[in-house]
Amino acid sequence: ELVALTEQLFSPVKNLQGLRITITAGPTREAIDPVRYISNHSSGKMGFALAQAAAAMGAKVTLISGPVQLATPAGVTRIDVQSAEQMHQAALSAAVQSDIFIGCAAVADYRVAEIAADKLKKGAEAEMQLTLVKNPDIIAAVAALPQQRPFTVGFAAETRNVLEYARQKLLNKRLDMICANDVSASDRGFNSDDNALSVIWRGGELDLPKAPKQQLATQLITLISEHYKN
Amino acid sequence: ELVALTEQLFSPVKNLQGLRITITAGPTREAIDPVRYISNHSSGKMGFALAQAAAAMGAKVTLISGPVQLATPAGVTRIDVQSAEQMHQAALSAAVQSDIFIGCAAVADYRVAEIAADKLKKGAEAEMQLTLVKNPDIIAAVAALPQQRPFTVGFAAETRNVLEYARQKLLNKRLDMICANDVSASDRGFNSDDNALSVIWRGGELDLPKAPKQQLATQLITLISEHYKN
Repeated sequence: ELVALTEQLFSPVKNLQGLRITITAGPTREAIDPVRYISNHSSGKMGFALAQAAAAMGAKVTLISGPVQLATPAGVTRIDVQSAEQMHQAALSAAVQSDIFIGCAAVADYRVAEIAADKLKKGAEAEMQLTLVKNPDIIAAVAALPQQRPFTVGFAAETRNVLEYARQKLLNKRLDMICANDVSASDRGFNSDDNALSVIWRGGELDLPKAPKQQLATQLITLISEHYKN
Repeated sequence: ELVALTEQLFSPVKNLQGLRITITAGPTREAIDPVRYISNHSSGKMGFALAQAAAAMGAKVTLISGPVQLATPAGVTRIDVQSAEQMHQAALSAAVQSDIFIGCAAVADYRVAEIAADKLKKGAEAEMQLTLVKNPDIIAAVAALPQQRPFTVGFAAETRNVLEYARQKLLNKRLDMICANDVSASDRGFNSDDNALSVIWRGGELDLPKAPKQQLATQLITLISEHYKN
């Protein structure tokens, strides 16, 4: 409470007042059976930093989060989900009531085709096949909304050809903006407190060099809100 | 430090002095590619509670832990691992120097056959097959040690036929003792602060009813050390 108050006293001009921003964060968990799951190394730190920055600048923020170990930033409405399908539902409901949608979550591309009701027993076979099916593409679904479509910002976490993949994703999914980051370096990206981003839109690109995620978040929210207004 | 000191002052007689106990705890993580993995819901709380109880009773404790969000109990030597293969190596090294080995970790039965060096790209296909191969059976390997075999205690976390599966496991893996718990109830087992255990050995069984994990841990360490001495 005190920290939040202090941050607000020292925050930049609250020029996002009245703006509704929805942000997704963290990993998703795709159940295999009651005890096992598939997930990824996303810590949720970048998405939570964006939510905190946007709220501090006066925006009305909804944060849809997968399973993470992070406290909810002051003034932010948080919705917790586990699977990509749950995040998809929550995201579409929130997106149509938002001016800006930022998809920062590392959503699982695939889920297990059939979730076992009981814990799978280890069989005699040395190998086993797990059949996976494609999850809904949340950011593409938001960007394709025929009505009440928010300004849509995606993330591309890659280990190689980072910019190339990000530019393709911007065009293929009809996003307004995409933030590319290289998660192969251990000193930034997933689980790190620092990050570096290349922000790409149809008319240009901007590199945000390596910095603490909270500092980067304020820069990125400022950049997004400028493009939203133009 | 102060908490640990207070606990020691009020701890029961330190009748495990000189005893070397190795405990495994938490889940393992089996990499799919640099960002994705398979894991399970084990929080590590039961294994960490056992380590704390054993150390408080004077034992020399080695705790081999998968990725968890828990502090190391006072006086305990902790070894962090990620995958089942890493845990297998660490466990066998420690087991041959131990009097008692307690396998409390929820070790993945299978790992991914080939870990991708770069993040897998989502293809055009609606389905995808993930080939899994069997992991080493750590507790069975410890129980089968031809020399320097410790008194070996396993855990069986099941969602149905709990006691039946546990009795089979005790015999098949030639364990000295097994602790069965039902992880289908959300008020105990994985991630909960409470647990209930059925402890089974060749000559008998004992139910330890639902209690805080730390209390249960002291009861269980006492029971194990009594059977070890006889």
